[in-house]
Formats: sequence, C-alpha cells, structure tokens
Amino acid sequence: MKPIRVGLLGLGVVGGGVWTVLAQNGGEIARRAGRRIEVAAVAVRDVAKARALVGPDVTVTTDGMALARDPDIDIIVELMGGDTVARDCILEAIAQGKHVVTANKALLAVHGNEIFAAAQARGVMVAFEAAVAGGIPIIKAIREGLTANRIQWLAGIINGTTNFILSEMRQRGLPFDAVLAEAQRLGYAEADPTFDIEGVDAAHKLTLLASLAFGIPVQFDKAYIEGISRLASEDIVHAERLGYRIKLLGITRRRPEGIELRVHPALVPDHCLLANVEGAMNAVLVRGDAVGPSLYYGQGAGALPTASAVVADLVDVTRLQMADPEHRVPHLAFQPDAMADIPVLPMADVRTCFYLRLRVDDRPGVLADLARVLSDAGISVGSMFQQPHGEHQADIIFLTHEAREGDVDQALRAIHGLPFVRSDVTRLRVENIT
Amino acid sequence: MKPIRVGLLGLGVVGGGVWTVLAQNGGEIARRAGRRIEVAAVAVRDVAKARALVGPDVTVTTDGMALARDPDIDIIVELMGGDTVARDCILEAIAQGKHVVTANKALLAVHGNEIFAAAQARGVMVAFEAAVAGGIPIIKAIREGLTANRIQWLAGIINGTTNFILSEMRQRGLPFDAVLAEAQRLGYAEADPTFDIEGVDAAHKLTLLASLAFGIPVQFDKAYIEGISRLASEDIVHAERLGYRIKLLGITRRRPEGIELRVHPALVPDHCLLANVEGAMNAVLVRGDAVGPSLYYGQGAGALPTASAVVADLVDVTRLQMADPEHRVPHLAFQPDAMADIPVLPMADVRTCFYLRLRVDDRPGVLADLARVLSDAGISVGSMFQQPHGEHQADIIFLTHEAREGDVDQALRAIHGLPFVRSDVTRLRVENIT
Repeated sequence: MKPIRVGLLGLGVVGGGVWTVLAQNGGEIARRAGRRIEVAAVAVRDVAKARALVGPDVTVTTDGMALARDPDIDIIVELMGGDTVARDCILEAIAQGKHVVTANKALLAVHGNEIFAAAQARGVMVAFEAAVAGGIPIIKAIREGLTANRIQWLAGIINGTTNFILSEMRQRGLPFDAVLAEAQRLGYAEADPTFDIEGVDAAHKLTLLASLAFGIPVQFDKAYIEGISRLASEDIVHAERLGYRIKLLGITRRRPEGIELRVHPALVPDHCLLANVEGAMNAVLVRGDAVGPSLYYGQGAGALPTASAVVADLVDVTRLQMADPEHRVPHLAFQPDAMADIPVLPMADVRTCFYLRLRVDDRPGVLADLARVLSDAGISVGSMFQQPHGEHQADIIFLTHEAREGDVDQALRAIHGLPFVRSDVTRLRVENIT
Repeated sequence: MKPIRVGLLGLGVVGGGVWTVLAQNGGEIARRAGRRIEVAAVAVRDVAKARALVGPDVTVTTDGMALARDPDIDIIVELMGGDTVARDCILEAIAQGKHVVTANKALLAVHGNEIFAAAQARGVMVAFEAAVAGGIPIIKAIREGLTANRIQWLAGIINGTTNFILSEMRQRGLPFDAVLAEAQRLGYAEADPTFDIEGVDAAHKLTLLASLAFGIPVQFDKAYIEGISRLASEDIVHAERLGYRIKLLGITRRRPEGIELRVHPALVPDHCLLANVEGAMNAVLVRGDAVGPSLYYGQGAGALPTASAVVADLVDVTRLQMADPEHRVPHLAFQPDAMADIPVLPMADVRTCFYLRLRVDDRPGVLADLARVLSDAGISVGSMFQQPHGEHQADIIFLTHEAREGDVDQALRAIHGLPFVRSDVTRLRVENIT
C-alpha cells in the first residue's frame, strides 16, 4: 500500500523525536499499521538546520500554511506550539480535509471546542494523545479503554517540572528557589518556568482530561489553578511527619452539583502509588464505577516519550483515515450530540480535607478559641499537633475532616482576626485518594 | 441507530458483571459508542436463575451454539471459560460472520492462533481485553498506545490470587498454607487453586502479552512456569532485609537470540512501583525504546472490573463492525502477514541476577569453596550475608550479578556435592527492573 505522507510543523525537541522514531522504528511501525508512515515535508524556522537532519528527499519550508494546503500531504502533525500560527495551520489543514495530530495542550484547552467542531464538520480527525502526559496512552485509556464506566474522578501528576521540584525539595530538604534553579540547569525547567510552576500547564492538560472523562466541552477558563511557587519547605516536612507527601495534582471529579476542575498542591497519603511517583515522571489515577481505581504511569515529557504518543496517533489515523467518520472514536470521548451540560463548580463549593498551619502565642485558651472558630464554621478537626517556636509562641497544625472550601475560607478570615494569631494561615488541601 | 444485539454465553461472575454494567451505564455507554448495546440473548446452564436476572425480554437458552448461529445476534460475548464448548461456539460465531468478545485467556493462549486465523479469514474481530489483567486496558495500551515503540520487555503482576498471598505472607509473617486457606475463605482463591498458585493462569496471560509486544504467534507451550507454592516465608524475610520484595512476575523480553517467556517468583527492589502493588491488584510495566518505562495498574479480576474490559471491547467492536477489516487493529498488534519468527529462549539461556540460600557447616574455608564453585561457573557474587543457625551451622545468602541460568544450575549441582552443604540451595531470580 502507498505510504502515508506526513507534513511536520516544527522540528524542535518533539518534532525531532518524531523524526527519530519514524526513522528508527519505521519497519516495526509498518508491521503494525499495515503501511509505511513517511515524513514528506517539514515546516521550520531554520531551513538549513532542518535540511541537515532530514536529507534531500523531504520538502523543507518555512511556510506551515503551504503544508496545510499541500494536496500531497495526508496528515499534518503540529508541533510548533503557541496559539496563533499553530491554530491557523490546524484550521486550514482541517478545511483542506486533512487529519491533524497535535501535542498542543495550550491550544486545545483554550480553542479545542472550535477546532473539534471544525474537524467534526469536515469529517477529519484531530488526535492529541501527546498533549497530556507525554508517552502515557492516557487519552486512549480514558476515551476507549474505560468506555464502560461512569468515571467518578481522576487525579494526576501531569507536570514533570513541578513533580521534579517537589521530589527534590522533599528528598534533599532544599527550598523551592534552590531546586528551581537546579531544575533549570538540568533542563527540567524552562528559563521562564511560570506556566509549569504556577500550574497553568497542568490545568491545560486537566481541562482536556475532564472533557474526556465526563463528556463536557473544554473550559480552561473555569479551572482553579494554584502552583507551587509559594510552597514552604516546612510544610513538606510536616506533611511527611504526618504520613503524607505534597504533590501538584490536577483533579477533576463529578459531584451531583457539578464538576470539580482544579490544580493545586495537595497532601496525599505516602503509601499510595501517586505519592511514590518521583522525579519528572507523570501518573494519572482514574476511578470508574466498574473498573475501580486504575493508574497510568510513565514519562510525561521529552523528545522520544512525546514522539511515542504522536506516532501512536499517526498509526490510529492511518488505520482510520479512509473509514467513515462514524466508525471513529469521538474527539472528546462522547459523541458530539451527546455532550453534557454540567457546570464546573466554583472552588468555594469544593469539599476536601485541609491541612492548616499557623503561628500563635503559646498561652492557655488559644487552642479552645481556634477550635471554636472552626467548629462554628462547621469544620471538624481530625487531628492537631503543636510545635513550640521560641519561648512564647507555637506552630499549630490542624488536619480537618472534609469541609466546604468556602466555609474554611470564612473560618480563616475569623482566625486572622484573633489577637493571639501571629502568622497567616497556610492552607493546603488533603486528598485521601486510593 | 439500531441497537447492537449481543449474545452472552455465560452469566456467572463476569457475565453477571457485564449485564450489570450495561444496565447501569447503558446511557453513558451509548453517549460514547453512538448507539445502544443490548443483551438480546443469554446461554446458561440454569435457565430459571438467568430468567430471574434478565427479565422476560431477553432470550434465555442452554444452547450456546444456537446463539452463535442466531442471525439476530451481532456480537457473541464468550464468558463460559473452558476450551471445549467455548472454542466450538467461538469458531461457529466466526464462521457465521459474527464478531466475538472473550475473556478466555486459557483458550486464547492455547488455541489463539487458530481462532485469530479463522477470524482474519472471515473478516471479523475477536476482542480479548478482559483476558489479561481485568479492567486495566493493557491490551489496548500495548496494541494501540505504544505502536511507535520497539518494545523491549514487559513485566507484570498478572495474577491477583498469588499477589494477595505474597502480600499477606510478607505483611503478616504467615506461611504459604495458612494464607492460601484464608484467601480461599475470602474468595481470593478458588477451591482448587492450582492454576493460580502454580503460575499457569499468569502464563496464559503472559503468552498473550508477548504476542502483542513482539508480533509472535501465541505459544503457551514454550512458556517457563514456576509458581509460589514452594516459597518459604524465610526467603520473604531475607528479601525484605536486602531491600527487595518477592512477587510472582510474568516477564517477556526481546533478546538478540530470542524471546524470554517466563513466570516465576522474583525479588524486585522495594522502592519500585511494581514492588508496591499489594493485595489482589495487578500491574504491568512495559518498556519501549521511545516511551521508556510505563506502568498500568488496576484490579485484575472481579465481576465489574472484568466487565469494564468486556464492555470496552463491545464499544470498540460496535464502532468498527461495519468498517473494512483493514481499518481495524490487528488481533495480535501486528499485521498477520508481518508476524515475526523469533524463537522463545530455553530457560537455561535466560540471564538474570540470582538469590541463593543454603545451609552449611560453620567452619573456615566454606565460603572460599562456595565462591570458587560460583566463580568457576562464571558467576560473580554481588553481595553475601551469613546468619548463624545453631552452634555449628549457618545460612548463607548470595546475591549474584547477572548470570546465565544454565550456568547457575550447573554450579548448584556442584555445590550440592560439597561435603559441608546441609540443605538444598534455594534459588530465586532477582529482577532489577525500573
């Protein structure tokens, strides 16, 4: 059979990885796909550099739109990133009736509804396994492997940079800034690490996972996002003493009133598998009503792991490109006419357990007053411990039972007004996931 | 669209689970699949009991072959088990042009080549996600999620009964027989537990995974199988002291000379995720050259988890039933005309590290003599420790570097002949997987 001809937009880390994987495993891949998959053209900024890599037989251009319009190209693989040129090229490829594979989570989390609708209308596929958790086939697992289930919730470590930083902070007892600098030196963090450390990248990915899990449109703007840049080393130490590790989790959960959609650091029990996902690794724990808990683990970034997902999508698209659209897996797991209209819950209505730490004057009655404020707000304390700080002060840590976040915020405002309270209250969520 | 009509052979634990999942999540499943999936008929031994479950609108019969031939049935789901009637019904369904979904690992591991060839010739699908690791979509992950990779090896905890027994032996310090009896009482082990505890069930599943990973025919008869029934509690204790846990692993690996295909207890480092898979849970670690290590974890048995996999297959088949066969994923991951002819290695040629334990007279020169025998056989020792046993004897434990199993067996024969050796040598393989 004639080879499938791919137009590759971008030949950076991931694009180079795709080139390498197709070159290295082309035979093995053709044995699975039933035909060869060839890069016919690449669009790049630096033509000479690209030419040196791909040799004389591949078209090299700086014009991505030209590739999107080239009738000799069967599938466009978009690995440029960004949401301007990438978006234009993808929409043009779709308009031309081409299938698209992309790793661009930022684009899909924001413009996904538009892009998937355009693809649906034109009868083409937009595949995006590489957009979430690198080489882990998590989109396939949720979209096809767990179709029997009413998915209840999922929680994932879906940003390798922050997981690396948190692992190093815990294992080596170093503060955030020192570990971030080291991560930048090692290439685990970018020069401008904001998107990673502030949780934005994880929220892009979580937005996509939530759509797949619950059949709702992508709605990044509704996600609650809190990063790790203000996380204190001492909370990592306290958490460990209490039998927890702190991870940056993306969590989405179906509640009767709506969908939780949130990224934030959380304490997780140290014996659970997610707590033991260390370094730059990713993992997603998915709970379905039939399957129970299931976990997917692997490298969430890097040239070859991400290329593994891109090429798996290429094989899927190659298999199904001539099939009727109705035979294909829907982009967001559910049929477009069967999407649900469930609201995303405001954070104030989310219920979790909490870790609260504050400094107080060490004198009688303090604990009673704090307990009273919490109890008045309907928050019940699971455990408490206290650590002297100097002669006249103490740090108090509460672990609460499940409480509504809005109620906790209200209680914290009251606590801040108490005369013996000497610090802000550090508030972290506790996820007793299993 | 008209509902898909399913004929269910068997309404036991898993069959009942499939009925429940389709009843409970029918709407959610139709939102994904694009049409409803309905059980139209069941074949069972006890008609009255089945009738009570499925109500008046479903055909109930004792004749599976009649269902396989019924032109009103689109897909046959075989959940009877066994390899006589089940095989006949599956082959008849295929001959009638029906798609088949089955959880029958024993049947596929032995008769898979015949069944898949018949399906291929007739242009129908035989889906078997539920045959390995229950609800974990491991077959989909390997067959579709990792298509970009040359898979190097995989190692799995793919039998929940034995993992439950090993977890209990370690955590509660109990001997094998006591834990087995408890597992039987709790329903984690069958009245006749032979297939589970002797590794046969795991080998059935491993046989299928090896085919998917490497594109080789199923060849259960070439698998090396060793169970856990002769595992001594003291080896679990020694292993733990050395930083290992003992798990029953199914391992398959591509070597230049051939494929390793083996099920046996093995020491695995206690910090790795596989070592921390406890109780009746399953997990499979797959290493591909592009993706690196990836792990899939979940419930490997039980009514609803297994039904989760059966129904996911039903959705896949529903989507693709009218598509050309060329658009479908090949049964064994690789196209039938592209299967590889790589031999399965004899166990003697497999190389691993080893744990060796033996009792000796406690006198000078013993260690030197043992080390000499090992070194003469080309086996190098990584570490050794000794524990006094009474006044005049000692237990010696060696951890070797990687060695050829045939060489180790030869050395053990020589060691058994030494005058100061007072026991058989307990030999366990060590897998330093990451």
